[in-house]
Amino acid sequence: MAVSRRMMLAGSMGAGAAVLARSASAAVAQPGQVERWGVLELAFDGPRTGNPFDDVALSVRFSSDGRTIRVPGFYDGDGVYRVRFSPPETGRWQWTSESSAATMSGKSGSFECTAPSAGNHGPVRVAAGYHFAYADGTPFRQIGTTCYSWALQSEAKCAQTLATLKTAPFNKMRMLVFPNVESVATNPFVRTGPGPRDWDPARIDPAYFRRFEDRIRKLGDLGIEADVILFHPYDEKRGYSDMARADDERYLRYIIARFGAYRNLWWSMANEYDDVKSKTMADWDHLLQMLQAEDPHDRLRSIHQITTYYDNRKPWITHSSIQNGAAVLDDVRAQLHRSFGLKPVVFDEVCYEGNSKLRWGNLTGEQMVERFWWGLMGGTYVGHSETIDPERNADHSWLGQGGRLAGTSPPRLAFLRRIMEEGPAPGIEPIQTWWNYSIAGKEFEYYLHYFGSEQPTQWPVVLPGRKGQPMNAYRLDIIDTWNMTISPVDGLFRMQRHGDYDFHDPARPTVTLPGKPWLAVRLVKV
Amino acid sequence: MAVSRRMMLAGSMGAGAAVLARSASAAVAQPGQVERWGVLELAFDGPRTGNPFDDVALSVRFSSDGRTIRVPGFYDGDGVYRVRFSPPETGRWQWTSESSAATMSGKSGSFECTAPSAGNHGPVRVAAGYHFAYADGTPFRQIGTTCYSWALQSEAKCAQTLATLKTAPFNKMRMLVFPNVESVATNPFVRTGPGPRDWDPARIDPAYFRRFEDRIRKLGDLGIEADVILFHPYDEKRGYSDMARADDERYLRYIIARFGAYRNLWWSMANEYDDVKSKTMADWDHLLQMLQAEDPHDRLRSIHQITTYYDNRKPWITHSSIQNGAAVLDDVRAQLHRSFGLKPVVFDEVCYEGNSKLRWGNLTGEQMVERFWWGLMGGTYVGHSETIDPERNADHSWLGQGGRLAGTSPPRLAFLRRIMEEGPAPGIEPIQTWWNYSIAGKEFEYYLHYFGSEQPTQWPVVLPGRKGQPMNAYRLDIIDTWNMTISPVDGLFRMQRHGDYDFHDPARPTVTLPGKPWLAVRLVKV
Repeated sequence: MAVSRRMMLAGSMGAGAAVLARSASAAVAQPGQVERWGVLELAFDGPRTGNPFDDVALSVRFSSDGRTIRVPGFYDGDGVYRVRFSPPETGRWQWTSESSAATMSGKSGSFECTAPSAGNHGPVRVAAGYHFAYADGTPFRQIGTTCYSWALQSEAKCAQTLATLKTAPFNKMRMLVFPNVESVATNPFVRTGPGPRDWDPARIDPAYFRRFEDRIRKLGDLGIEADVILFHPYDEKRGYSDMARADDERYLRYIIARFGAYRNLWWSMANEYDDVKSKTMADWDHLLQMLQAEDPHDRLRSIHQITTYYDNRKPWITHSSIQNGAAVLDDVRAQLHRSFGLKPVVFDEVCYEGNSKLRWGNLTGEQMVERFWWGLMGGTYVGHSETIDPERNADHSWLGQGGRLAGTSPPRLAFLRRIMEEGPAPGIEPIQTWWNYSIAGKEFEYYLHYFGSEQPTQWPVVLPGRKGQPMNAYRLDIIDTWNMTISPVDGLFRMQRHGDYDFHDPARPTVTLPGKPWLAVRLVKV
Repeated sequence: MAVSRRMMLAGSMGAGAAVLARSASAAVAQPGQVERWGVLELAFDGPRTGNPFDDVALSVRFSSDGRTIRVPGFYDGDGVYRVRFSPPETGRWQWTSESSAATMSGKSGSFECTAPSAGNHGPVRVAAGYHFAYADGTPFRQIGTTCYSWALQSEAKCAQTLATLKTAPFNKMRMLVFPNVESVATNPFVRTGPGPRDWDPARIDPAYFRRFEDRIRKLGDLGIEADVILFHPYDEKRGYSDMARADDERYLRYIIARFGAYRNLWWSMANEYDDVKSKTMADWDHLLQMLQAEDPHDRLRSIHQITTYYDNRKPWITHSSIQNGAAVLDDVRAQLHRSFGLKPVVFDEVCYEGNSKLRWGNLTGEQMVERFWWGLMGGTYVGHSETIDPERNADHSWLGQGGRLAGTSPPRLAFLRRIMEEGPAPGIEPIQTWWNYSIAGKEFEYYLHYFGSEQPTQWPVVLPGRKGQPMNAYRLDIIDTWNMTISPVDGLFRMQRHGDYDFHDPARPTVTLPGKPWLAVRLVKV
């Protein structure tokens, strides 16, 4: 078959899009440069016959400064194969292709990786054990949401969701590859007949994934991480999550090659993995290990449970993704999840703000926000969603399809995000949870105490501290987390020793509080 | 060297002691029978020269009904080697010895394993995932205590401790092999000079371990499990926990062979393992794997932390042994440890009742008892100790040396044990912790709700239950966990559906309570 050289396209990650330049001398057209953490895309014409997903291997080795990264390619239909690479370092990169198709093998070229443009902080990584930061060191303060099948809705609905997100506080979106509610795009695989199970797992439909990745990119343009969920148990009708091992592997390899270069991509292996009846723990371990081994971009990896916590100490997991509505009603409960996994914890599902008749979908806005605050106090992160739906079944709500937000929690989550961003980097640490102070922050510099639904009229300003540790003086703010006010208290708290374990200011041992729910106090060292 | 055959001794596990009978025809004396889960002991004279701990291998294969168990021997000094075996099944057992010393090799014999005598329930095993039961199926409701170095005190002090235990509620004792406080027995290894580090790890002193196992047996006689802690970080002066790998292995093999046959033995690899500076996580994994591989009796195995939770999902761990004083102040916090480890949870250290100036040793009796109740409500188990000490440093208290109990919690723990024994077997399960019912028991049969320090005057009698589930009728008791009273409430609660998720009795939706702290209610199906 004929092999032509195609113009290579850089990914459109907003300001991260590469400047394209056709090289006059090379046999293969290539962009002259791409920015660090942007997407370099090479496209080849290749075999159209047989099954391109099984019969054709393609990869490209990218090398710079003694480092080589092998990046797998994928078939994009119409005889076009692509390789996407997000260079982790600036400088000159050389590349060479390898393929089972002779016409795509042995091609080579080079490009310049330039400094990232403004707003490009790189991919999010684990930071300081229990937190997240972009590759350039900027803290990533996770305020997540979930719209399971938003990316599979109509163009108009997708646009509406994106418009909503543009003014919302969320910086991570959990989203399914396979539909779970009524959707426009429902066929990731080529259909073979009229029945729901009439599809061929060996024939991926590139159009489905092209459409999906457009949504990933658009989230990236808004500065939102795409937490892409590869399997889920809500689709017994079509059975996309019930494929055989080899089919799962083909799908996983495709997803890795196709989506992995987008710097805002996170992998979630499954939603409620333990409710997928066709897979065992060994299957999940295998798929996660494969993901770790074969993703050259080493994106964040997690798996979400309904009942049985996955063992998040397993080395292929980067952070704990937890479903638990009760664990984030108490800072110590939340913090314990750090002690178990020894990794960052995101409570990705804690029930939802909404009017569902189902108890997991009828939190008040206050209850939704409360969960974020307790999670914060435990040194963890929390996810929102909304189940406000005229049919009260959650399918057509923000949780199911995206669209508009109708709840009262998002402005308060924006306020919380501001509090987080004003706080210590990379995040808030729980402090001496054993001793029931219920404070968090950074010792001897910054403290938060959250009162939840209590309506306190005063609080004893006692901080843990022992002989020889810095006592310091602090200013104190009273934060109304619901009404979104920050009220500074006049003067300072000048700490002195108070018993063997504590500091306080003997001249003002307590602070007066307004006796309302959803208060917090913040102490900042002066 | 001369090899003689010695009279074999059965262990003195109270009623479990074997009946000894000299076989007239055999070359090796042997007991004609031993009861199931008792201790059969074979003794051989062997080499006295060289280092018997390193130079001489001895094991015996015990076979019955197609099953063979290889049991290692140990050197007991004075040229005597012993092999101890606790037969897991009744019937005829054959045995054959193997040894690097030709004179101890190839010996054989047989014995009859008879039914266990009254009070011998066998070793404790994991039951129903999160609980414990003796091998005969009797539930083991753990009410533990800790006297770290009690077994290393004078005969008089040991006798006092045992006398105290005889009337105390405790059925598990945590105890160190190596001393942590002032002790009479301090030399597990042969001394080589006057300094604290002048000892030879290759020369175990059998007398030390003979003395120690006498205490294990005496606990067994009282029906108390001996949770023997092999290493700890409190001995930098002598450094017994800082040996080299080969020395640790020699010690571990010795302990396995010498103590493992006692059916009341549990292994705790370390106290505060993560504070033993000379050992890494890889060291602990290795020692635990070795323990699992080499202990023919497969006793329970755990490891206790100070800060970093061990990964209790590792397959060589049988149950989570947790230190956490805050986790047992809330049922959900406690329950989460089950979700983490997927094994039974024993909170072996939750601070202590006492008057110590250190905050981990100054709980009131009420606070000590409260922790047991919250642990119970979370489907877990808790451990007691006491730090009432004239010097207020805990060394000479029950925690350090044993002796007498002076606290107020033990009678209340006896009362709690009675409540547990009256409850469902093998233990109390937390029920729908996600939805904040704070109830535990066995669904549709038995429920407990605990109020802690609240002083409730009424409680809405609402139980989780959905359409189609058994509604039943219940009698209700008001339990004063501190004053140790059980007050039945007249009449029954006849449950009806109450919304989509709950049951209650519309005729009496609440129960009146006496407005005191430390209350619980118990509902039992009629």
